[in-house]
Amino acid sequence: MQSKILSRRDLEFLLYEWLDAVALTKRPRFEDHSRETFDAALDTAEQIASDLFAPHNKKSDNNEPHFDGQSVTIIPEVKTALDAFSAAGLMAAGQDYELDGMQLPCVVEKAVSAYFTAANISTSSYLFLTIGNANTLLKCATVRQVEQFVRPLFAGKFFGTMCLSEPHAGSSLSDITTRALPDPVDGPEGERQYRLSGNKMWISAGEHDLAGNIVHLVLAKIPGPDGRLIPGVKGISLFIVPKSIVNDDGSLGERNDVVLAGLNHKMGNRGTTNCLLNFGEGKFKPAGKAGAVGYLVGQPHQGLMNMFHMMNEARIGVGMCGAVLGVTGYLHALDYARTRPQGRHPAQKDPSMPQLPIMAHTDVRRMLLAQKSYVEGAMALVFYCARLVDEQATAPSPEARAHAGRLLDFLTPIAKSWPAQWCVEANSLAIQVHGGYGYTREYNVEQFYRDNRLNAIHEGTHGIHGLDLLGRKASMQGGALLHALGAELGATIAKARAAGVSAELQVHAAQLEAVWARIVEVTALLYGAGDLNKTLANASVYLEATGHAVVAWMWLEQALLAANKVDSAVQSERDFYNGKLQACRFFFNWELPKVGPQLDLLASIDTTTLDMQDAWF
Amino acid sequence: MQSKILSRRDLEFLLYEWLDAVALTKRPRFEDHSRETFDAALDTAEQIASDLFAPHNKKSDNNEPHFDGQSVTIIPEVKTALDAFSAAGLMAAGQDYELDGMQLPCVVEKAVSAYFTAANISTSSYLFLTIGNANTLLKCATVRQVEQFVRPLFAGKFFGTMCLSEPHAGSSLSDITTRALPDPVDGPEGERQYRLSGNKMWISAGEHDLAGNIVHLVLAKIPGPDGRLIPGVKGISLFIVPKSIVNDDGSLGERNDVVLAGLNHKMGNRGTTNCLLNFGEGKFKPAGKAGAVGYLVGQPHQGLMNMFHMMNEARIGVGMCGAVLGVTGYLHALDYARTRPQGRHPAQKDPSMPQLPIMAHTDVRRMLLAQKSYVEGAMALVFYCARLVDEQATAPSPEARAHAGRLLDFLTPIAKSWPAQWCVEANSLAIQVHGGYGYTREYNVEQFYRDNRLNAIHEGTHGIHGLDLLGRKASMQGGALLHALGAELGATIAKARAAGVSAELQVHAAQLEAVWARIVEVTALLYGAGDLNKTLANASVYLEATGHAVVAWMWLEQALLAANKVDSAVQSERDFYNGKLQACRFFFNWELPKVGPQLDLLASIDTTTLDMQDAWF
Repeated sequence: MQSKILSRRDLEFLLYEWLDAVALTKRPRFEDHSRETFDAALDTAEQIASDLFAPHNKKSDNNEPHFDGQSVTIIPEVKTALDAFSAAGLMAAGQDYELDGMQLPCVVEKAVSAYFTAANISTSSYLFLTIGNANTLLKCATVRQVEQFVRPLFAGKFFGTMCLSEPHAGSSLSDITTRALPDPVDGPEGERQYRLSGNKMWISAGEHDLAGNIVHLVLAKIPGPDGRLIPGVKGISLFIVPKSIVNDDGSLGERNDVVLAGLNHKMGNRGTTNCLLNFGEGKFKPAGKAGAVGYLVGQPHQGLMNMFHMMNEARIGVGMCGAVLGVTGYLHALDYARTRPQGRHPAQKDPSMPQLPIMAHTDVRRMLLAQKSYVEGAMALVFYCARLVDEQATAPSPEARAHAGRLLDFLTPIAKSWPAQWCVEANSLAIQVHGGYGYTREYNVEQFYRDNRLNAIHEGTHGIHGLDLLGRKASMQGGALLHALGAELGATIAKARAAGVSAELQVHAAQLEAVWARIVEVTALLYGAGDLNKTLANASVYLEATGHAVVAWMWLEQALLAANKVDSAVQSERDFYNGKLQACRFFFNWELPKVGPQLDLLASIDTTTLDMQDAWF
Repeated sequence: MQSKILSRRDLEFLLYEWLDAVALTKRPRFEDHSRETFDAALDTAEQIASDLFAPHNKKSDNNEPHFDGQSVTIIPEVKTALDAFSAAGLMAAGQDYELDGMQLPCVVEKAVSAYFTAANISTSSYLFLTIGNANTLLKCATVRQVEQFVRPLFAGKFFGTMCLSEPHAGSSLSDITTRALPDPVDGPEGERQYRLSGNKMWISAGEHDLAGNIVHLVLAKIPGPDGRLIPGVKGISLFIVPKSIVNDDGSLGERNDVVLAGLNHKMGNRGTTNCLLNFGEGKFKPAGKAGAVGYLVGQPHQGLMNMFHMMNEARIGVGMCGAVLGVTGYLHALDYARTRPQGRHPAQKDPSMPQLPIMAHTDVRRMLLAQKSYVEGAMALVFYCARLVDEQATAPSPEARAHAGRLLDFLTPIAKSWPAQWCVEANSLAIQVHGGYGYTREYNVEQFYRDNRLNAIHEGTHGIHGLDLLGRKASMQGGALLHALGAELGATIAKARAAGVSAELQVHAAQLEAVWARIVEVTALLYGAGDLNKTLANASVYLEATGHAVVAWMWLEQALLAANKVDSAVQSERDFYNGKLQACRFFFNWELPKVGPQLDLLASIDTTTLDMQDAWF
């Protein structure tokens, strides 16, 4: 019986058989590591996630954080779980030893975090926001800021947030109006102190009592000499705004002027507080005056660029959330399909024969196999990206690092969006496998479906990522990103053409080659449209078609590996590899052909949506 | 500003411009009716739905029925709304005058009910279950049963349920084990009395205090002479089991032995109680002994056939629920897109320009146009089916009635399933248009998404309807149903080829003709597979492909009408017709091509899902 959180076997396939995480231990940064240390980290994660995160997942959903106007109440299991995570040192799993980290490769760190996310997305959000926040600060904060804020974050003493959106500015960050006025003080880096005022919306983990302090990373605008805000993203700067002021000795001082104005009540992800925060409304008066004390991070007006360090990481993290929620839903559906008796085969005319487990029905296997192809395809994609992060950071040659960076830039919008789309579909199928039971809160799968629906919205909506992929990534550096990816696909296709590879996988390789050639051609056609509005009109379709091609590639990679091993494997392993081969077959027979009409549509420079008039709706 | 429940303009287009409901008034049954009486019924429905149903839709969701072990508490607004519906005489809107009905045609009655369903699916479920229950009884009950039960149902004094599933028998009704033992008594029809014992699951409206009595229609098995239950559906009989015994004078007598064992807690549709009911456990002892008193309806062992009267009606009703939830979500998204400012055009480089309403973004229009094409396509389909019900019942010639029956039989699984699939997708897009706001319960659209997800599960799952369509309907009467539908599509295609029709619509007609020819060919191929398991393996794909073709046909019908009228119309009407033309264009350019790969898959007799082994998952 597999765990219903994640499949350890599949994780090991991705990490060790495919992405060769152990090879990273030859690099200086990871030289203390080995398969054993990686496995130990996974064991710890699996244990804590199973024991302390999964058990209160439904309880959190049923008892969402409550705000009584003064403080927020969260069920106590959340803090217990978070403390155990911190105590195991996992908050800094990927960090330098110097920061009390473990220097785990990103790809292993992501496997560790996958357990927590799959077990309880709401509770684990507090952790991954904190890690993302601290990682951002590491890249652009001063030494003093690292000491004051980053160390306590990695120690789990403080938790972090990212405060970007405002009620009137979500996708359009250039329109934020939170102001930061200089408030220089004596003392070290006193010139970095500002006072902030404004409202921030959709702040996950924006208020709670789960940690000693909350470190808000806030985008705000420093007015120009005329007192007016600079329009556009160029006017945006990044600030640390702690909930409580941190004294020079690290102790907590006064309460800062940041207050919770209200909680949003979400369809899913209910256990994570999501807040409207008011900065500088004067409820608290640190050092005797209103205004939220904030510390400039990096240079003025470089805020968005600095925050993007976090957003790229956060986007791969969102893809991971989508993928693992898909996995856990799939594992639940699989368990149900094996144990629920219902009905008989169409050709069975004798109603006195015992009912069959629903797994025996082809349509149920369709729903399970579709889930497997979506969720294991998504997992492969996000782990591939995580491996690229390691490559970008530690590959020996500058060329390899640059190549990894190009791949990562191109794949990020896909890794963020594809799992969010198809693993929600997987969750829907998991409900469907359960029939009426799946629609009830007495079972678990409907929660995954609700939880997962967020992932196409936050960290840039689906549409925004379509624009990012087609409007930026596909044309950046003269198309170098697209071509970098094409080279990787080409390498896989070449492997599939080697002697000894099955005729079927050779056919799949040819399918993928044709689709990719078409994508390259369509990209050029779209840029030849001569009108940016036409080029970008159907960017979401471009994102989806390219995503399917990329995941087909992920499946071909997995299948090539499985095909190599299946014949010589012991029975249980043979089953595992046959599953990979069948899921690959499903993806190429059932899924990849969907791309054809999408590329036809794009190639036709279809203007149906562009031409649609408001008055016609 | 349109209502956010339904678009009256679109309803009128369907009823009067397309389906010519007024022509029905030439038939004897509807001769007292006119456009004016139809409009008056719609006015009443719109008013009551807006005033009394919509306002507590969210409150019902937030305060689901509560069972304290003794009784069920439901927020008081529900009863107020239901009473107003009954008081307006709408429960019997479609019934004979003799039953205090209005003799409205089915197509108009469905338009009336659409307002209530769109306004509040949970509250209106109590009504439509009651109407379906009473309609079933009308077809097979005795005169005495009609007096005792059907009249109070249509008067809104009693409410009804349908009790089919059991905890271990959902899709497989042949496995029910509820027993009915003869318990003949003196008096009229005393031989029809039985005592029932067993457990029924998923009983919507199974317990409440909203009406004086609850009339359960229950499937149960009468044991054979050896005391054993007859295996299979042949052993199933239909019974009336009232919550309280009804005396000969119509007054309520003893409490029957039917008790609520527990409520299911659903993801959506929370306002409708959904129950596990125990029959005959002995908690109550009518006439001094345990066992739920039930009255046989129709002949023994004919229960499933009799219940199917209700199930076919219920299935079109489910399609309607899917469609109208799609519509209301779309109207909410439309309103939001017109009023929410965010971002600028890609080519706009000046960030100091004001933000645009999000309607100005092509991707938002894509999401709205997709919704429009799904929800108005679904509405057309279910109204077309309702019109067929009228045709089947009242067309002058027997040939026309039989033809309508064939169309209806073929279209029912599609009308049930297509809206349930694509209008959930519409609801998901409505959330997406709202961004983060759409994901919160402070807005309305996430509830529609949750509510609508039920429709692919109840009244036969998606997979069951795939088997019904391909395994039964497509081959019944030597393929006569498929050909009946082909003839209708052919007639539309011929209209599109007439002189004066735009080149574009002619192209659409050719697309539809090609797809339909392919469906006919693929149907034959599948039946030529020589193995029922292979024929039916991918029945869900067949259902989805055929559904898309049918909805494309619905769009071509609407577009032909709109094209005829658009040029001579006044501006607001011209906008309306242009909207229809653009949505048709969208469906043919964006949606219908999706059918190509589905039909390719079916034609290949793909066995990927059939071959998948349990151990490989």
